[in-house]
Amino acid sequence: MKIAVLGGTGEIGEGFALHWAEKHQIRIGSRKSEKAEVTSERFNETLANYGCKGEIKGFDNKTAAEGADVIILTIPYEHVSGVIDVVRPVLSDQIIVSPVVPMTRGEYFEYNTPAHGSAAQEIQAMLPEGMNVVAAFHTVASRRLCSLDPAFQCDVMICGDERRSKDVIIDLTHDIECLRPLDVGPLALASTIESLTPLLLNIAMLNHLKDPSIKVL
Amino acid sequence: MKIAVLGGTGEIGEGFALHWAEKHQIRIGSRKSEKAEVTSERFNETLANYGCKGEIKGFDNKTAAEGADVIILTIPYEHVSGVIDVVRPVLSDQIIVSPVVPMTRGEYFEYNTPAHGSAAQEIQAMLPEGMNVVAAFHTVASRRLCSLDPAFQCDVMICGDERRSKDVIIDLTHDIECLRPLDVGPLALASTIESLTPLLLNIAMLNHLKDPSIKVL
Repeated sequence: MKIAVLGGTGEIGEGFALHWAEKHQIRIGSRKSEKAEVTSERFNETLANYGCKGEIKGFDNKTAAEGADVIILTIPYEHVSGVIDVVRPVLSDQIIVSPVVPMTRGEYFEYNTPAHGSAAQEIQAMLPEGMNVVAAFHTVASRRLCSLDPAFQCDVMICGDERRSKDVIIDLTHDIECLRPLDVGPLALASTIESLTPLLLNIAMLNHLKDPSIKVL
Repeated sequence: MKIAVLGGTGEIGEGFALHWAEKHQIRIGSRKSEKAEVTSERFNETLANYGCKGEIKGFDNKTAAEGADVIILTIPYEHVSGVIDVVRPVLSDQIIVSPVVPMTRGEYFEYNTPAHGSAAQEIQAMLPEGMNVVAAFHTVASRRLCSLDPAFQCDVMICGDERRSKDVIIDLTHDIECLRPLDVGPLALASTIESLTPLLLNIAMLNHLKDPSIKVL
């Protein structure tokens, strides 16, 4: 499967790339292709150090998205609209994955409900007719995922309206051993899982926990 | 500590009563005192069967609340306002604990954000000046708590504005071995933890999990 990780030069992009590279074609996207190329080389060195196969490639966001099966938006909420404008000409039937969280930090982290109800629903409204957004991966501690922390275990809560798209993302989540996918319902419920990110950040800050994740027992 | 569990004749009330009875004075409240008395007798028999000390007593809600240190509202959202009206004459400096969740069930369970932002904030607005609400216990699977399920483990997320009140509830949570209290911030963030209940119910329904609880790892 061809997976474009847009804004994928950060820790969460690295985590996805390292875990999926043996089984899937990973295309890291960035605003500037040079940055994505240099970062992908670094990811490939890490892969080699772990004795893993696979080759991660870097592109500008639009080139990364073109012809992908799945596009993951590992982008701050503020930049999502701009990136979608850039890739819109190459959007056709890719599944769009949103781990995007609209939040601010004051004394505490706070979820800011967008007018559409959630970032995922807002992104759905920006896309051409017939494309599907799946909301997922909001609770994945990126530092633990990209360091291949062997003690890391995390449930990934997944919202989406279209069965096949959701199943593809559930399967991709299963491909990462430390993650367990949980179906949480339709996209209309995405605000609940987006708001888990500020919740976890507040829990970390107030209870001296480092890079916490969530498990449903 | 004197703990009034209003609407406490159900499973969650039983769970609190059984776990706290050895260390605290538990006063089960109900609309009719007879129901609370009969139910308390049943709880006392269970206590005796487990070889535990303590005596749980049943009262009408107002009598249970009078002179308590802590009042826990184990009441459906729709009935909270009516119960607060009943107990208002005896409210003075009790700490009010809200595990209340405003939600509806259609095809999925859905959180219904109240005008005040959360049920906990709405309850705070109903109380006399100077009283404090602490939001807690929304994610506790009542069936597992009241059956004293030895495998049960659950994190209790706690919001509140007043440090001493919050610390009292954190200590009470520590008194129940299977629960871990996590400070989640001020009452303004309570909607996030209230919405965990419909989230867990949807997860249970869609992923065939029974009475799930949440742990932060």
